[in-house]
Amino acid sequence: MAELHQKPEDKVIQELQDIAHKLRIHSIRSTNASKSGHPTSCSSMAEIMSVLFFHTMRYKVSEPRHPSNDRFILSKGHAAPILYAAWAEVGLFPASDLLNLRKIDSDLEGHPTPRLNFVDIASGSLGQGLSVACGMAYVGKNIDKASYRVYCILGDGECAEGSVWEALNFASYYKLSNLCVILDINRLGQSEPTSLQHDMDAYRKRLEGFGFHALVVDGHDVEEICKAFSGAISMQEKPTAILAKTYKGKYFLDIENSEDWHGKPLGTKAEEVIKHLEGLIKNPGALQIQPQEPLNDDAGLADLSALELDSKPSYSIGEAVATRFAYGNALAKLGNCNKRVIALDGDTKNSTFSDKLRKVHPDQFIECFIAEQNMSGVAIGAACRDRCVVFASTFGAFFTRAFDQIRMGAISQTNANFVGSHCGVSIGEDGPSQMALEDLSLFRSIPGSTVFYPSDAVSCEYAVEIAAKTKGVCFIRTSRPNTPVIYKNDEVFEVGKARIVLRHPKDRILLISSGVTLHEAMKATAILEESGVSVRVMDLFTIKPIDCEGIKMHAKECGGKVITVEDHYPEGGIGEAVLSAVSEDPFITVRKLAVMELPRSGPPDLLLEKFGISAKCIARAVLQFLEKK
Amino acid sequence: MAELHQKPEDKVIQELQDIAHKLRIHSIRSTNASKSGHPTSCSSMAEIMSVLFFHTMRYKVSEPRHPSNDRFILSKGHAAPILYAAWAEVGLFPASDLLNLRKIDSDLEGHPTPRLNFVDIASGSLGQGLSVACGMAYVGKNIDKASYRVYCILGDGECAEGSVWEALNFASYYKLSNLCVILDINRLGQSEPTSLQHDMDAYRKRLEGFGFHALVVDGHDVEEICKAFSGAISMQEKPTAILAKTYKGKYFLDIENSEDWHGKPLGTKAEEVIKHLEGLIKNPGALQIQPQEPLNDDAGLADLSALELDSKPSYSIGEAVATRFAYGNALAKLGNCNKRVIALDGDTKNSTFSDKLRKVHPDQFIECFIAEQNMSGVAIGAACRDRCVVFASTFGAFFTRAFDQIRMGAISQTNANFVGSHCGVSIGEDGPSQMALEDLSLFRSIPGSTVFYPSDAVSCEYAVEIAAKTKGVCFIRTSRPNTPVIYKNDEVFEVGKARIVLRHPKDRILLISSGVTLHEAMKATAILEESGVSVRVMDLFTIKPIDCEGIKMHAKECGGKVITVEDHYPEGGIGEAVLSAVSEDPFITVRKLAVMELPRSGPPDLLLEKFGISAKCIARAVLQFLEKK
Repeated sequence: MAELHQKPEDKVIQELQDIAHKLRIHSIRSTNASKSGHPTSCSSMAEIMSVLFFHTMRYKVSEPRHPSNDRFILSKGHAAPILYAAWAEVGLFPASDLLNLRKIDSDLEGHPTPRLNFVDIASGSLGQGLSVACGMAYVGKNIDKASYRVYCILGDGECAEGSVWEALNFASYYKLSNLCVILDINRLGQSEPTSLQHDMDAYRKRLEGFGFHALVVDGHDVEEICKAFSGAISMQEKPTAILAKTYKGKYFLDIENSEDWHGKPLGTKAEEVIKHLEGLIKNPGALQIQPQEPLNDDAGLADLSALELDSKPSYSIGEAVATRFAYGNALAKLGNCNKRVIALDGDTKNSTFSDKLRKVHPDQFIECFIAEQNMSGVAIGAACRDRCVVFASTFGAFFTRAFDQIRMGAISQTNANFVGSHCGVSIGEDGPSQMALEDLSLFRSIPGSTVFYPSDAVSCEYAVEIAAKTKGVCFIRTSRPNTPVIYKNDEVFEVGKARIVLRHPKDRILLISSGVTLHEAMKATAILEESGVSVRVMDLFTIKPIDCEGIKMHAKECGGKVITVEDHYPEGGIGEAVLSAVSEDPFITVRKLAVMELPRSGPPDLLLEKFGISAKCIARAVLQFLEKK
Repeated sequence: MAELHQKPEDKVIQELQDIAHKLRIHSIRSTNASKSGHPTSCSSMAEIMSVLFFHTMRYKVSEPRHPSNDRFILSKGHAAPILYAAWAEVGLFPASDLLNLRKIDSDLEGHPTPRLNFVDIASGSLGQGLSVACGMAYVGKNIDKASYRVYCILGDGECAEGSVWEALNFASYYKLSNLCVILDINRLGQSEPTSLQHDMDAYRKRLEGFGFHALVVDGHDVEEICKAFSGAISMQEKPTAILAKTYKGKYFLDIENSEDWHGKPLGTKAEEVIKHLEGLIKNPGALQIQPQEPLNDDAGLADLSALELDSKPSYSIGEAVATRFAYGNALAKLGNCNKRVIALDGDTKNSTFSDKLRKVHPDQFIECFIAEQNMSGVAIGAACRDRCVVFASTFGAFFTRAFDQIRMGAISQTNANFVGSHCGVSIGEDGPSQMALEDLSLFRSIPGSTVFYPSDAVSCEYAVEIAAKTKGVCFIRTSRPNTPVIYKNDEVFEVGKARIVLRHPKDRILLISSGVTLHEAMKATAILEESGVSVRVMDLFTIKPIDCEGIKMHAKECGGKVITVEDHYPEGGIGEAVLSAVSEDPFITVRKLAVMELPRSGPPDLLLEKFGISAKCIARAVLQFLEKK
């Protein structure tokens, strides 16, 4: 690839510089029209964008999501105006549309989202783009085995986010030489200079320390940038980081490199700056250069249609099996069915049992080490453009670490699936730091999410199969202890359909639960029978969407009294989901049993008892609630 | 301090080595007794612990939280057994207690928590300890201006967590030379080797790149460790990282440096290993060395008693002021009153208005750059041992980034306060990535938390004052738009006490809200008057605890119908908090208005309308709900 190192022709360099100025002008005009936005953050990266979009990247303009296109991720999402400007300049849509920036009826939003066909993932919460880019590059290299490359631009401010360093470690560990990271080091954050300002040597040392081929360039020198990208393409051993020294508001008179110009349109200064920029443009006429199409159209279509367990669950009623174990079984079966089913884990694979897929298909497993933020971003990237069906697992508690990534995943319209094991106090001796007690709340609050909480091995296997086929963020909550199998192997499960697992003709209360506490509720019925009280027990299967109609119908059949039981804090979990389902229904009253205080270490059974969610506690609550008028 | 570099006497070295073996034996015995735990993760750091606790650290054994003691943070919390063993060996409690590890009635939990008087913060969610240590070291150096030093031990597995690199960047930026980080590089994670295994040079390059004085040592050589700690003490310009090459399960026959021995007691192998270790101990009798007391007792008491606004709010009814602006005002007033009131921000200080404190008291402000995880950990560390009253602010959406740190903060019994601005769709054009729509849910799910959502500038100022005095995690949700002041400057606010802001004798519905949507609810009453419908409007002030009695009483006075309105997703927010408050009350029905789908960019007013929480939408919902039987 030696020819790529050649200096581009002078007229190409000149034209790329002209384009950079045109992108600056668009950024000024669109943010002035919207009276908000970040033109100075655009200006620092104008030359990088012009070189990428008109010289380095290979893609079909007319099909921005073509599988063989190079990928581009704008991690510094607040520079959206220049991304939009670049796509307008390459001809995807008229430049006049840029003046609709941030309007309620335009998809040119304040920060990029995949409502636009040229955006793969939403950005705007800083420091997340590189993890997504890593997921794309990993898939490109190891699963698609295709030629496309992945480019990701980060701001220097966001390099303070630890997730960036998680991603860099991941990229170098997996030798993602098809990944090129560009740091737009413009020295200035929102409210003051960044911690490293223009210390380019510090950046170089950090990137080299993290295993990157690091190239420091003048980020406003088109020729240097072209050469650096060529160098990145020819580097086969490791990923490349281009460390571009730039100036915020470059070429904006009296504004360049000044503080207090973050996130501000140029207002009345705009015309003068635009006139200055126009004066710098050598060829204001039609462009002589065009983006290049992919050299090799070798990515192909990814067939994600076959997503079944390759064999039915095979458990016996009453057999003691942890749902986390069944998760591993189902994952392996799905992986047998489709080689694009992949699993990620954060060094807990022998606890979550995702290693069951790894054992049979090591090429369908990505170890992400103890870096849940990056794992979640890699999952979103790997699932992008429907290249893979992805399951990312760790202890449920540790998804709190990745809440921002998952939140952004929803804005990114991701189909990534998340599986959290070790929920609740029923994990026992490891203590509160390891207990997921807010995970249902977290995943319920994700727009469009589906939240599974299977209560036995059979339903867990079907939850995995259904999640694989379900759009949007899915979460499966699994439990650590072994619990009895309660469903037949051919039982049929559906999203939003609860099941009654115990009933009598004269049920006086409806007990609603899932997981370990469902089994406690079932045990409670035996205790209550001694008092001559019969109750109905409902297994929700999905907490979101919740089976509103089923709950209301059975609650009424039981006289209107409902008790919810959950190995979770009382906020945002099963109890509140049920309350929301019946909120407008007079005569249905609900008592919530949940973990009401910070728990501690101890044996699981004693903890269920101590925190009020054991069979005995449930039985007591039933009797007390029945006494209430 | 040249004498510190001297080699310790041979007999001291021998004794420290003996102690390391004794700590190993305790770790084996206690984990065998509890049938769970991580003895091999303890063994790799036994020499480091013996040197720290018997040679390097200066502290009063009888007063583990004495202000002038050196601090010790075990970031790798799963090595709790050796921490407990060290405190038993220095004499804080009998070694026989160690056999109660992980029992339900013992505070020697699976991972350390401050239920123990020698533990400052809970660990067990990896990669968090260093941020807390940074908070302590920053306070020690800049606020206490005292001699105590801060030691923090990390495992190598947790160095994959980005939060570690956020903290390292913070420590070097602020030149925390009183901080010493020890990496226990034992090569093995839970399920496989770490990404860098024993590549000590890679660690050294990374730590040096992040501005540390980095020393590579043989982590099982007591003399080398002693010298490295001396070197750390004499380094005045920057923090030190001791990179200790160690072996997991060191000195455990057939187990040392083996995979598949993570988190497993030695079981039947224990006796043989203990016998081997006992054979290595030269002096099995009483110890000849003791921990050293602090050289200078110069930290003193921190007076946190005066925590008032130094002047009352001074707004006019009807004046348009954003609550985020009022937050800044109140913070500055509190800071005037007590110099130990400090604020932290993540490069959003000119948006959250925390810069109002910085302007008047720059020494009471810590810029944490765009690293919310570390900011939250620093807040917890700075608040530790009641040294400071801390307010950490950023956009509410970005606290999702720090959910795990905040969750652990609750287990750490922290009093840190968090302030999230830019909540909801009312921020407008920046779009969904910047909108906090799950923050109420997040903070409600923190055990023992207090969640403030002030609706005007006056109540926001009082919320800040009350939060400063309130134990546990406090969250204050502030809004971006200017909203009218509705309370008099001397109004009295209390946690858990809602206020009725509009009422009529014949109210037919109770509207419950806070923040921007409270003002929409108030506007809705004017629209409804045209239809001859009068409604009552309640301002919650705190979402948690919520005013159960007030809600029930007013709901009944209004005929049992409640409508909640919130600029938040429907899960876990105001609506579900209200539902939980009235869950057992028949005849009270609740309709929730919330942001029901993923929002987008646009002008605030249009977004409130589009997502169903504007005055018009509220008025419509009232009429529809009244029609319902």
